[in-house]
Formats: sequence, structure tokens, C-alpha cells
Amino acid sequence: MRLLPSYVQDRWYTPTGDGTPVYDAVTGEEIARASSSGIDMAGALHHARTVGGPGLRALTFHQRAALLSDLAAHLRGHREELYAISARTGATLYDSKFDIDGGIRVLLHYAALGLRELPGGDERLAYAEGPLESLSRDGSFLGGHVCTPLRGAAVQINAYNFPVWAPLEKLAPALLAGVPSLIKPATPTCVLTSRLVELIVESGLLPPGSLQYVCGSAGDLLDHLIEQDLVSFTGSAATAERLRTHPAVVRQAVRFNAEADSVNCSVLGPDATPGTAEFDLYIDQLVTEMTVKAGQKCTAIRRAFVPADLMDAVGEAAAARLAKVVVGAPSDPAVRMGALAGLAQRDEVRRCVKTLLDSARLVFGHPDRVDVRGADAERGAFLSPLLLRCDDPGASAPHEVEAFGPVSTLIPYTSPEHVAFLASLGRGSLAGSVVTGDAAFAREVVLGVAPWHGRLLVLDTESAKASTGHGSPLPALIHGGPGRAGGGEEMGGVRGVLHHMQRTALQGSPRMLATLTGHTAEER
Amino acid sequence: MRLLPSYVQDRWYTPTGDGTPVYDAVTGEEIARASSSGIDMAGALHHARTVGGPGLRALTFHQRAALLSDLAAHLRGHREELYAISARTGATLYDSKFDIDGGIRVLLHYAALGLRELPGGDERLAYAEGPLESLSRDGSFLGGHVCTPLRGAAVQINAYNFPVWAPLEKLAPALLAGVPSLIKPATPTCVLTSRLVELIVESGLLPPGSLQYVCGSAGDLLDHLIEQDLVSFTGSAATAERLRTHPAVVRQAVRFNAEADSVNCSVLGPDATPGTAEFDLYIDQLVTEMTVKAGQKCTAIRRAFVPADLMDAVGEAAAARLAKVVVGAPSDPAVRMGALAGLAQRDEVRRCVKTLLDSARLVFGHPDRVDVRGADAERGAFLSPLLLRCDDPGASAPHEVEAFGPVSTLIPYTSPEHVAFLASLGRGSLAGSVVTGDAAFAREVVLGVAPWHGRLLVLDTESAKASTGHGSPLPALIHGGPGRAGGGEEMGGVRGVLHHMQRTALQGSPRMLATLTGHTAEER
Repeated sequence: MRLLPSYVQDRWYTPTGDGTPVYDAVTGEEIARASSSGIDMAGALHHARTVGGPGLRALTFHQRAALLSDLAAHLRGHREELYAISARTGATLYDSKFDIDGGIRVLLHYAALGLRELPGGDERLAYAEGPLESLSRDGSFLGGHVCTPLRGAAVQINAYNFPVWAPLEKLAPALLAGVPSLIKPATPTCVLTSRLVELIVESGLLPPGSLQYVCGSAGDLLDHLIEQDLVSFTGSAATAERLRTHPAVVRQAVRFNAEADSVNCSVLGPDATPGTAEFDLYIDQLVTEMTVKAGQKCTAIRRAFVPADLMDAVGEAAAARLAKVVVGAPSDPAVRMGALAGLAQRDEVRRCVKTLLDSARLVFGHPDRVDVRGADAERGAFLSPLLLRCDDPGASAPHEVEAFGPVSTLIPYTSPEHVAFLASLGRGSLAGSVVTGDAAFAREVVLGVAPWHGRLLVLDTESAKASTGHGSPLPALIHGGPGRAGGGEEMGGVRGVLHHMQRTALQGSPRMLATLTGHTAEER
Repeated sequence: MRLLPSYVQDRWYTPTGDGTPVYDAVTGEEIARASSSGIDMAGALHHARTVGGPGLRALTFHQRAALLSDLAAHLRGHREELYAISARTGATLYDSKFDIDGGIRVLLHYAALGLRELPGGDERLAYAEGPLESLSRDGSFLGGHVCTPLRGAAVQINAYNFPVWAPLEKLAPALLAGVPSLIKPATPTCVLTSRLVELIVESGLLPPGSLQYVCGSAGDLLDHLIEQDLVSFTGSAATAERLRTHPAVVRQAVRFNAEADSVNCSVLGPDATPGTAEFDLYIDQLVTEMTVKAGQKCTAIRRAFVPADLMDAVGEAAAARLAKVVVGAPSDPAVRMGALAGLAQRDEVRRCVKTLLDSARLVFGHPDRVDVRGADAERGAFLSPLLLRCDDPGASAPHEVEAFGPVSTLIPYTSPEHVAFLASLGRGSLAGSVVTGDAAFAREVVLGVAPWHGRLLVLDTESAKASTGHGSPLPALIHGGPGRAGGGEEMGGVRGVLHHMQRTALQGSPRMLATLTGHTAEER
């Protein structure tokens, strides 16, 4: 079986040993193996710091922005090939576009942002943040802040659900900041990330050492971190805990950003009764979030909070819509929902659903039965969309257990305070939404749940047409959330770039600070 | 012996048990005991969340700013009393003003900032950060960010060297954000913090539950943290490691900010030869940093980087100045430098100096001998200023060992690149300075060392008169540093307030976002 190579120290490296099998999610057949056996992790990090960093820092912010733009154009020319590989991870064409085109859009967003918001001239190192302030009455002593690129490597550990978007959304701000990247994909879908990295390397666009790729296990990678490195992790809360407490991370206060799955919620406003446009928007969005990527989105709606007297209506409307969702081989154009990433993932979802069913019942679907079009329901990692209903909002499982697949649970609430309290039982989420036409209700819920959320969408008829929906992180907005969601922040426009830089307060005379920051006296 | 009480759940609580002795740093006599035995830590945190938080959030930002201003006025009226207690921690009047007046200035800074930069009206919960951006071509779907107060407690664990400034510098941004504080002082100087908290409580200014005080050990306090709490720690790197990996902190991704001692440096420019004003400024500042607070400042200069050919001249000039420093009882007006915080601290400094002397020699002072005015040199924690010289810049100890007292080491360098490299051997610092009249040299050094520093001061004749100096954190600027310095950030103007809030991306129609953020259509 083909062992997937890694790209380390500007060379492709094919590992030794047997490796871990990677399967086609649709047919179950083994298609490759992943291993990082024999990779010199310390050497890779050293290469990033001594070759990649200096190479990137020799470019201006605008030159780095241009690289992102060129890279986006290059990848755009290879989309069809990436879609084809993506289908083998279980993704429909719609899913693949979400992942691949979405990733390219992040590159383009940061390319434009670099030109628009970062210095264009020779200030390739220092981004002046905020104005200079006088620190003395006579104006002879000023203070301000500059941000300079960290001199280490950005270690990017990705989850399996977005094999293209995730590495690109981490790469773009790092590259723009002038920090080299080391990408580690999740094994179940690494075949797609491997091809993505090949395309990037083939483009010849990036300076030596600015991109490395470790396919397979992270091995002893983290042991070799230093103070100027940073780690961006997306994945499970359990793995986040383990990495966060890694001795090298702790001892050297390595910047560690975690984005973990969370039990996100969507709230239906009491005004949005059946027959209203908002009711339909709520059902639409719920079904979309359950079925896009077969529900394998860390932002997907797991808890659908519904006014108690609308539980039946929502259950019936959603079930009717879900009944029309064709599950099957992603290559079939009639198919609306593909497979999970693998059989192990399906087993895990089934286990979670079993726990949820202790306090809920099924409104739609069966965990062990699904009609599949154009593929084998058992060999491929297929699962029916599963809509559950839990009439006891105080039950703990629906707020704690995340079935990472096409699974949501309807939960009743009685007042804005009640639904804010229920939302907080998720202990920190990436994304939430409120579907209502009532601005006062939206305000009450949003201000009540904001401390528990990284992103909140208010959906009404005015924005419905243009809205990007509950589950889509956007590069202009932060992605991450408190508590269970990992406590981190990615993207958010320039914030994502600054996350890769050290903020330093500067103090001195007007002449000195003008030289240091490029601020002129007039700009003060 | 008097057991110092704690203030928990709006009541003074006197602990049981023997407690830990607290000594007068000048005479060595026991003056109190500290114990947190019997305190219901879970109850304290619960009280902060359920009484303190709601009380503070019921006030507008401007009302909270007014509280800070009133508190500053109240404390200002009790300065003399605080100075007297401060003297027993070994501090001269100058030192005490640095700590006490400095702390009051932070309150005033945040009071003014609250009025100037935070919303004044009824938006008591949400601070809109940055503009709203259109997320669609037709302008019907917008995005932006709001920050809302965390719904937990700010647990503030302080170091012994600034018993007033440190708690106030943490309290001010927390209170302005609308987050209740739980202050834990370091035991060696807790007598002063205890009186500070008594004064605050006596003022009756703060809403119930918004301030609690645990004197003595933190006990099982951290076990009871939840996702919405945050921990701000100042102290040793070793303790920071232990707290950062506490299971409750890790599991719930509790926001953890550390500010740890670091091996800060000051660079003398090659232009600043003897006879120049900058040479004198460098010597002045070095001696000041060594002797203020008897060198017990986490920002103090530990490494004095000097052009190799100026090592003799700097050593002689600094030694001549240090010879004039009168060490002794802080109450004596002729005394320039007081005692360390205690005998245990002096023992630790002596141990560190011994290690430093393996690769350095003494230029001034003796670790075991000091002339003391008005006090007993052995009973009180007195120590001579100790200036060392290490002619091998590659030796490891001077870059790694921090003697937390009146101790600095002269180290030669040969070029801007060389000194930037040497600075980085400190592995992350709170503060650095460059003393030069040469803006090009300053720029080269500053951009070279910025990624390793939280704050950098450039000192020249133009700013000298107004400059606040190497060692003084200012509320308008961030305080903290990467790597060894803890990887955190405090203050920095509004940043310190936002550190106590959750940033949430908001998406929706113009009408919805206007309601949610208070932005009007024109401001978009």
C-alpha cells in the first residue's frame, strides 16, 4: 500500500514502517497509509525557524499578501482534482466546495486584508497597533505598541472534518504574519491534505522552509518546541487537554490555541410560529446543519431550542424535510448527504446517540438503518440523519454529549432567561444562532449567551438571502469559543495575524518612536 | 499572634489554626500570621458569580469607572497609614510611593479610560469592538464583534513585591469590565494588602460580592473554577507552571494569565561613551533599577549589556554611584535602599548570586556584608547592592539565573546582532531598554529583540526628563512578556478590560445588529 510522504526541510520524505491505514469512506477500501516514522521533528522545527522564518520576514507584508493571492489562484486551477479526492472522504460536491472553495476564500480574504490593513512599505517586521500616546505632559515621552512576527514555527494540528479549509485557514494568517507553518493533518482524511500540500509545493510560490508537512502521528514533535513557537490545534477536547499540558508547552509558555468541538445551539424565537418565514428559516437551517458534511462540523447545531408549544410543529416540519434527504455515494448528483469520514467515526456517533437516547427519543431516522443510493450502507460509513427530542430540558446528556455526525436534539424552553441558561449548560460553544424577527428577543438572548459563545448569528427575513448561516466560520470574524470549545480564537481578520506576532509596548521620545514605528509626528 | 482575617461572602472571617508567620522585614520580628484555614473557597467563588457579578453588571461602564475614581480618592486619603505598614516590608518612602501611589494611579487611569473609551449609556454589557463589516454584496448581512463580561470570578494571585500596586492593577480592569475579584496576596507582605482591602471594604463603595480576599494559602480554590472564571497570576515561573496545569484550569480552558519574573536586559549604545549624556543616563537607570524596592522588581535590569570596550568604564561609574547608596531602616530619611521582603528571600538571592559567581566576578558589594543604618544587618533582610561582571557573554547563568534582589551583571557585546542574540538567551522578558542617541542603532536592536519582550524603552536625552524609566509598567501599555516571562499580558489600556470579557462575533441584518451593538447605520 502507498505510504503517504511528508514534506520536511524542503524535501519529500517517504516514511518507513507499516503506517496507519487510510480508508475510502464510501467503499471502505484501504487507499493509503500514513506514517511519520523516521521524521526528524527537531530538525523540521529548526528548519522552520532558521530558513522559513527569515525567508518570510525578508518579504514585506504586501509581498506575503501577494503570495496568498497567487496560491489561491493556483489552487483554484486544481479544484476538480481536489473535489475528486474529497469525494472519497465521504463529501458531496457541495461539501467539497464548502471545504475547498472555502479554504481558497480564506487565502483571498487574507491577501486582501494584507494589502488593506497592513503596512505596505519596508516595515516588514513591525505592525504598529493603535496610536502613539503621550506619556508625559510636555509630549517628550510617548508610548505605543508594535507587533513583530514570532521567530518560531506555527505548528498546526488539524481535525479530519475539513482537510483543506482547516490547513488553509491556519496557514493564511501565519504566512501573512511572516511565521513558517508545519501542517499536521488528521489521518482519516489526510489523503486530501497530502494532495493539497503537493499542489502548494509544486506551485513553487512559497519560500523555502515556510511550509512543512508531517503526515501521520505527531510523534515527539511537541518535545522540541521553544518559546517562540506556537501551536494551533483543532480537534477533541481530550486531545486539547493533553497537548495543553505537554511539558514543553507549559514550561516555555508556548502560545497554544485550541478549537474544540462543542454542543452548539440554535434558538427558535417565540414569534416564529408555523407559517412565518422565520419558522421555515429555522427548519431549513437545522436540516442544512445536520446534513452538510454529514453533520461533521464543529459548529453544527446539536441542540435545537424550541418554545415548548412549538416542539411538535418543529419536529414534524424537520422530519418531513429530512425524509427527502438522499443519502449515498457523493459522486451521485442526486445525493444530498454523503458518508461520515470512516467506520470508526460512525461507531463513535452511534455510541453517543445511544447515550442521548437515555433521555431523548427519535423523531426522525434510525441509528442502524439507512437507505443508501449508489453505495453499500455497511461498507461505507453511512448514517441516517437522526433528529432526537428531549422533553426534559434539565437532562444532562443533550447539553454534554456531542454526536459528531448528522445528529441534533430538540429541547423545549419557556422564556429568554430559560433558554440562555440552557445554552450555558453547553459550557462554552463555537457558534450559536437565534432565528427570530423580534429584535428585543434577539437582544435578550444574545446578551445572555454571548459570554458562552465565540460567534452568534441572528437570522431573520431581512438577512436570510445573504446570510452565510449558522455553521460557517468567516475569516473576518473570530472562530473559536470559551470553555468546552477550547478557549481559543482563530481568524477574526487582522486578529488572526496578530496571534502569530508578539505585541510589545514601546516607549521613547517622539524622534525615536517615529523611527521605530514609522508613525510620523502628524499621525500621533 | 494576630491571625489576619480574610473577607469572604461580604464578611470578615478570622481563620482557625496556627497560620504562617509574617515578619517585619527590618527587625525580623513576627508581626502577624496568615491562614486561609476553614474558608469555603467554593462558596466564595459562587458568591462572586451570583452576587458580585450581577451587582457589577447592573452598573454601566461609566458607573463602574466612577467607582474606581471614588476608590482612588478614598485610598489617597489613607496613604500615610499605608506607607507606615509598607516600611515594615522593607520599603523606603520612595519604594512605598512607587507601590501605593502607583496603584492608585492605575485606578485613576482606568477610571478615565472607562469614561473616554467605553460606552456611557445603557450598554452596560456589550462593548462593540471594531466596526461592523458588510458580509454580503447587498449590505443586508453584517458582522462585527462585541465583548461581554465573563460571568465568573477573576482570581488574582499576587506576588510579594508590590502588595498594593499588584492587587489594584488587577482589580481596576476587572471591576471596569464588570467582573468580581478575589484577591490572594503573597504571604510575606500580606499585612499591607490586608490593610488595603480593609480600607476598600470600609469605603463601602463596591457592590456586595465584587471584592473578596483570601489571606494565606489558596488551598483548594482552583479546584472550584468554572469556564467563566479567570486566573491572573504574578509570581515565579515554577508556580505559574503548577497553576497552568491545574486540572480545573486545563479541563475547562480557564483563561489563565501569568506574569513571571524574567532576566531583563538594558543595552548601552556604542555611541554612549563616557562623557555623553546617554552614558550617564544608563548608569543612573542601572543603579535605580538595582536599588528601588531593593531590586525586587520583576522588571528590574538583571543583564546590563555593554559594548566590550566600555565594560571597565561602566563598572567604575556604576560602582562609584552604588558606593553612595545608604542601606538601612526605611524610616530613616537618609536611607536610599531598604530591606528585602524577608530573610528567606535574602537566602534565595544569596544562593542565586553564588551560582552567578561561577561565571562572573563582583564589581561592587559583597553578598554577606553590608553597612546598615538604623537597623540590624542580620535580623533585618538587608543586602548590599551587588554588581557583577561576566566577561564571557556565552556563559549560561547570567541569562538564566534571576537573583531577585539588588543584583545586576555587566555583560559585553560586540554588535547589534550580537546583543539581540544575547537578549534572546533570556528566553522571554517583561521589559528591556536601549540607551542611545542613535536612532538607527535603537531600531536595529528593538526590532531584533521585540519578539522576546513585552515592553521596550528607548532612552535618550530628548525623553530623559519625562521618561518613567525601564522598570515601571504603565497602565496604558501592556505588562507581561513571552516565554519565561509567562506569556501573558496585563493592562495595556482597554486590552486589560477586554481580557475580562468574552469576544463574540455577531452576524445579522443591519436592523438586528443596530439593536445588538448600539451601532447606528451611520457608524457602520
